[in-house]
Amino acid sequence: MTVGILGGGQLGRMLALAGYPLGLRFVIVDPSAEACAGRVAPLLNQDYLDPSRVTDTLRSLDVVTYEFENVNSDSPWLCGDVPVYPPTAALRVMQDRLAEKTLFSELGIDTPDYFAVDSLTDLHDAIARTGFPAVLKTRRFGYDGKGQYVLSSSSDVADGGGLSTGRPLILESFVRFDRELSIIAVRSARGETAFYPLIENLHRDGILRRSVAPVPSAPSSLQANAEAIAARILERLSYVGVLAIEFFQLGEKLLANEMAPRVHNSGHWTIEGAETSQFENHLRAILGLPLGSTAARGLAGMVNLIGDIPRHEDILAIRGAHLHAYDKSPKPGRKVGHVTLVCEDRDELMSRISQVEGLLV
Amino acid sequence: MTVGILGGGQLGRMLALAGYPLGLRFVIVDPSAEACAGRVAPLLNQDYLDPSRVTDTLRSLDVVTYEFENVNSDSPWLCGDVPVYPPTAALRVMQDRLAEKTLFSELGIDTPDYFAVDSLTDLHDAIARTGFPAVLKTRRFGYDGKGQYVLSSSSDVADGGGLSTGRPLILESFVRFDRELSIIAVRSARGETAFYPLIENLHRDGILRRSVAPVPSAPSSLQANAEAIAARILERLSYVGVLAIEFFQLGEKLLANEMAPRVHNSGHWTIEGAETSQFENHLRAILGLPLGSTAARGLAGMVNLIGDIPRHEDILAIRGAHLHAYDKSPKPGRKVGHVTLVCEDRDELMSRISQVEGLLV
Repeated sequence: MTVGILGGGQLGRMLALAGYPLGLRFVIVDPSAEACAGRVAPLLNQDYLDPSRVTDTLRSLDVVTYEFENVNSDSPWLCGDVPVYPPTAALRVMQDRLAEKTLFSELGIDTPDYFAVDSLTDLHDAIARTGFPAVLKTRRFGYDGKGQYVLSSSSDVADGGGLSTGRPLILESFVRFDRELSIIAVRSARGETAFYPLIENLHRDGILRRSVAPVPSAPSSLQANAEAIAARILERLSYVGVLAIEFFQLGEKLLANEMAPRVHNSGHWTIEGAETSQFENHLRAILGLPLGSTAARGLAGMVNLIGDIPRHEDILAIRGAHLHAYDKSPKPGRKVGHVTLVCEDRDELMSRISQVEGLLV
Repeated sequence: MTVGILGGGQLGRMLALAGYPLGLRFVIVDPSAEACAGRVAPLLNQDYLDPSRVTDTLRSLDVVTYEFENVNSDSPWLCGDVPVYPPTAALRVMQDRLAEKTLFSELGIDTPDYFAVDSLTDLHDAIARTGFPAVLKTRRFGYDGKGQYVLSSSSDVADGGGLSTGRPLILESFVRFDRELSIIAVRSARGETAFYPLIENLHRDGILRRSVAPVPSAPSSLQANAEAIAARILERLSYVGVLAIEFFQLGEKLLANEMAPRVHNSGHWTIEGAETSQFENHLRAILGLPLGSTAARGLAGMVNLIGDIPRHEDILAIRGAHLHAYDKSPKPGRKVGHVTLVCEDRDELMSRISQVEGLLV
């Protein structure tokens, strides 16, 4: 069976590497000839809207999926006779922060207060309700903290939060959370669902730096709550594939912050730290195969390598360090790899994480 | 860094899949256009003795390795300016059962009695010393039980054991072993060594069917003995890479049977069942990187899929089953995949192994 993947970044690369042992083949579509997934699978180097070779290629594919949520839903790759998973209806919801938050509200899922902002008047009205600080975000095409601005005072409001006018925005109340968590959920084309253990995430400058799973020191109800939230979303959207949901934790309460209709950086630890990786389960799901166990294997930590990769020998000298180098050229702020650490003891895990982080500049 | 691999079968394929996360690139050389490693890495489709494109390609490689021991040591791929690991001297020893057994003897490693057989007279003389039954083997190019004949009586001897004359042979005493074991050892270009836990292997018709590791119910001295044997061989050959040694166990005694200068079928369980797989450690070794931990993660079982692969959904419905399909066309007797099972409890492991074996015809 052959899977088409829109997007040739590290997520597409890791999907292909997880799929080869299942005997799958892949076609990667990416407008960049340097796409790192193209190092491990055949690359169709063209824009997502370019119709050339689409019809012929689709004939050789069993299913189409994507590794990023900003793919234009008018892309001819999504409109052929080949099943597209996750469903494009889910994709559209998660491309728009307002639609996403509206879905949370409809399903009774707690989320920070939010207000659509299409004008300066809207912004003033919204601020009057949230107070300061508040977070102004573009509704579409944000990632890794891009398109997000914290408004701290009325002077920040005066210039529209630095956002160019005319783009649909959303204002959200600023949440003083205890910590950020996420859950990786999966639903198969046959309707089977599974949930990985909750993950604790640490962001800096809007970019995920570190994940630890299963989440340490959590009340026992937290996992059940997160799974119930995820299950409601999976069912409502007739979802197929891996879904990532990010939460703010306040005490025993979870506020849903955002979702991604794809494998997710906070789930990379599952390659070594769970019985079945998020990548393999995404493929099993979209092909209608039985899902694999999502149980953790010990305690896992994941450290992102941003900008550049330290010397391989220094990373690999750390006991239990699993290097994932994406074969991308170095660039400030770019995710170029990650390291996963797995062990049975939490203190030992944190010590190894510190050793990896000590190599980062 | 780019690694050249001679041989494009499943071992080359799994080497490439283990190397991509380290950021490595690969070139596979194989005379067959259908070589399954060529599905996951660039394939140079030519004979190993064909000199075309060798010089240019070698310029782009950092190291050359091989996935089968029958590569002709005169191959131009092995004679360039690029390091070849494991060293060709080790390759030559392991291409010849007599040289292999002689090395065992020189190093004081117990091995079944053996006698070179170059004529019918030699054969009669040898049989006079071993008695019946005895095993007559071709000295070179045997694999998966091919080129091995059990001689049970003088009528088997009369026709030279069914072997065409003129090929160098070896007669070995027939060992009534308790069971067959193997160890996967590794030595890096920097001289670091590591040893995986002993593996129990089950063969049928000369083909490995099932491995279980770490070996069940073994006296505590067995692992130490096997490691000491492996260490002697690694040092003597200034070996670099993964080395597999197969043993017969008789009580607390190990008889070395044969070796392979490469990753080995009995080590496939290490992908999920050890902290670092044999494939990754082979690559770390030949690139002079620190070796990864060889510790087991729970108990592992590996079942070979011979001839054809059962329905994927049936395999994946078994809890904890990790499918490795090699993307090879079905053919009687051909290794086309394997399934690894990992868990903490031995009874549960054996039950899951039985479930997989129940799917095999």
